[in-house]
Amino acid sequence: MSSNLTLEKIDQAIQILDENNIDLWMIFTRESATMRDPSMDMVLDANCTWHSAFLINRNGDTTAIIGSLDLSNMQLQSSFKNLIPYVQSIKEPLLDYLNKHNPNKIALNYSVNSNLADGLTYGMFLTLFKYLEGTPFTDRLVSSEDIIASLKGRKSASEIAIMQKAVDETLRIYDEATSFIRPGVTEREIAAFMLGLVKQRGFGLAWEEELCPSVFTGPDTAGAHSGPTDRVVKKGHLLNMDFGIKYKGYCSDLQRTWYIMQDNEDVPPESVQKGFDVLKNSIKVASDKLKPGVLGWEVDAAARNYIVENGYEEFPHGLGHQVGKIVHDGGAGLFPRWERYGTTPFLPIEQNQIFTIEPRLTVPEHGVVTMEEEVVVTETGCRYLSVPQEKLILIK
Amino acid sequence: MSSNLTLEKIDQAIQILDENNIDLWMIFTRESATMRDPSMDMVLDANCTWHSAFLINRNGDTTAIIGSLDLSNMQLQSSFKNLIPYVQSIKEPLLDYLNKHNPNKIALNYSVNSNLADGLTYGMFLTLFKYLEGTPFTDRLVSSEDIIASLKGRKSASEIAIMQKAVDETLRIYDEATSFIRPGVTEREIAAFMLGLVKQRGFGLAWEEELCPSVFTGPDTAGAHSGPTDRVVKKGHLLNMDFGIKYKGYCSDLQRTWYIMQDNEDVPPESVQKGFDVLKNSIKVASDKLKPGVLGWEVDAAARNYIVENGYEEFPHGLGHQVGKIVHDGGAGLFPRWERYGTTPFLPIEQNQIFTIEPRLTVPEHGVVTMEEEVVVTETGCRYLSVPQEKLILIK
Repeated sequence: MSSNLTLEKIDQAIQILDENNIDLWMIFTRESATMRDPSMDMVLDANCTWHSAFLINRNGDTTAIIGSLDLSNMQLQSSFKNLIPYVQSIKEPLLDYLNKHNPNKIALNYSVNSNLADGLTYGMFLTLFKYLEGTPFTDRLVSSEDIIASLKGRKSASEIAIMQKAVDETLRIYDEATSFIRPGVTEREIAAFMLGLVKQRGFGLAWEEELCPSVFTGPDTAGAHSGPTDRVVKKGHLLNMDFGIKYKGYCSDLQRTWYIMQDNEDVPPESVQKGFDVLKNSIKVASDKLKPGVLGWEVDAAARNYIVENGYEEFPHGLGHQVGKIVHDGGAGLFPRWERYGTTPFLPIEQNQIFTIEPRLTVPEHGVVTMEEEVVVTETGCRYLSVPQEKLILIK
Repeated sequence: MSSNLTLEKIDQAIQILDENNIDLWMIFTRESATMRDPSMDMVLDANCTWHSAFLINRNGDTTAIIGSLDLSNMQLQSSFKNLIPYVQSIKEPLLDYLNKHNPNKIALNYSVNSNLADGLTYGMFLTLFKYLEGTPFTDRLVSSEDIIASLKGRKSASEIAIMQKAVDETLRIYDEATSFIRPGVTEREIAAFMLGLVKQRGFGLAWEEELCPSVFTGPDTAGAHSGPTDRVVKKGHLLNMDFGIKYKGYCSDLQRTWYIMQDNEDVPPESVQKGFDVLKNSIKVASDKLKPGVLGWEVDAAARNYIVENGYEEFPHGLGHQVGKIVHDGGAGLFPRWERYGTTPFLPIEQNQIFTIEPRLTVPEHGVVTMEEEVVVTETGCRYLSVPQEKLILIK
């Protein structure tokens, strides 16, 4: 049975094709159980085996050309109206479709800029190109990255409701972790405690378990993208975590920072408090700037400059990314204009996109301060999905 | 910590590069947690985030050029000796590497023929090609499909040990199923009983749960690639199953056949016994023929002809496929020279490949006889991983 969500997203896709004056969106793929094109997830729950074409037409037609052995499964699980099974080769039914509909442009599932729109493999591209040789369609192929960016970015009301719940449950687990954190426990023990809660409540994880949650305590931690270690929480440490759950297929992604008080301290050291305040304010500076039409790099630059102006090194990554079915969801990002971010820092922000805001800075001798909030873009600005961290969480 | 397995496979890869007179194998990829190139699994446990190049050089050098955020995780989890982190773009460190090593050919991770060797996306290909423009390296790119086929095929000692255990545990579950099978139970109940054992023991399944195990009882079953139904086991039925587990990342794939005795029978009917004997002998004929250098179609033909000569229709599929991390693992197969098998029946068999041997035949009015054994190719022949089924299993 196809889900309501995929039907909603197919309707959105047809609308987006019309806005972009593109007649056809084609996902060309095979053996998706081995390596699944992430753009399929928006419009299809099932997997395919042989060469397959999933065709969404601006005129409202949805057609899947699939291997005959996938037919009965697709009848049960796909949202596509027309299913065309083949036995020997996809070439003929595909050319028949294209000749019949004669699309002005074919948005194809590849992208230089966005990995989430880049599911077509090079081997499959060569196959497709050979099929299309000598037809006018070779000159009508364009990347579907804009369509996928809009489709993934524009969250429907039901998507936002699911993601709000994912954020709420993540913050609840952070709250419970606070009562577990104390001098003497290890990063690994904190992670295990949180994973226990995740499993008890039937949630998934937003990314791989080895790194979720990531727990970093003290001045000598491994840095981002590392799993929790046997490093022991000690007094005087800044401790931060990066953690997200998966709920009904959608991810959350939040970071929080704690400080472990020394015996003789009533308040955190000045350097720690300053680091926290600068980071907190940099998030405010960014979210004040975030609204439809603004470019992601401008939002990144606002936070980045604020941090540098206050005497810290700039963070070595983008300020924030979109969140959705995948934790680093595609299209526009709050990224600096660095080559590896391609065009994504230059794509205008749209209403109903959901972004993280996650700067970081280091406080020498104590550790790293990071907070990561999630916000949804509104008509005139943005609204926090997370209750933002306003104060260092102090462990006594 | 990198596993012994990936270190063994990297050593093999270097050997295979040398045999093929190719200086460099490059996996060029990004964001592997979202869509993971299946060829990575052979040589790397970790995931990468930004554009990454995993370089295995015929001279023994192994270098990973990765985003700086991935560095500490790769230090823990990767088998690559040299880790080169970058912040802004992979272009410079990649060109530096290529200029320094000046490889005669670069085997790249794309393939028209095999999806298991086709992890490079078209967007990533365009990016790479742009980086290489104006260098001699654009003309030295070749598909790595042959390297990956050899690497996946040639099992190391520890891979064989893991796969032996997967086979042993599968046969153990078949044994336990034997005491559950009786007239009156349904295909679905037998499958549920076996899945309970799989989960209790913490194994995965070799393929999707709906079809694993597949259970077929009696003369009117659905045929291959169908899940268990509410069909009831009855006296006089031949019952067969297709089933495999996943253990430490490796699959098993075995079939067994039972006969449900009638009240008045001391031995199975002659037609049933003859069907069983012919099938059993056809497996023997095939395994006698299987050794390094022989072509897969020759092995297939030996069993196929034996069955036809004994008065049965030929089976409508290949005799056997390789098994590994994926249940239908790539490269050479024991397949007939039919168009849909492409070049795979013509690839010479190599030592340490693991194959299934799985002919089938129909006994009218009783059902289907199938056995599927797993064998590993040795220096001079092959050795059974499964204890082959020598007798019909009789249910009284």
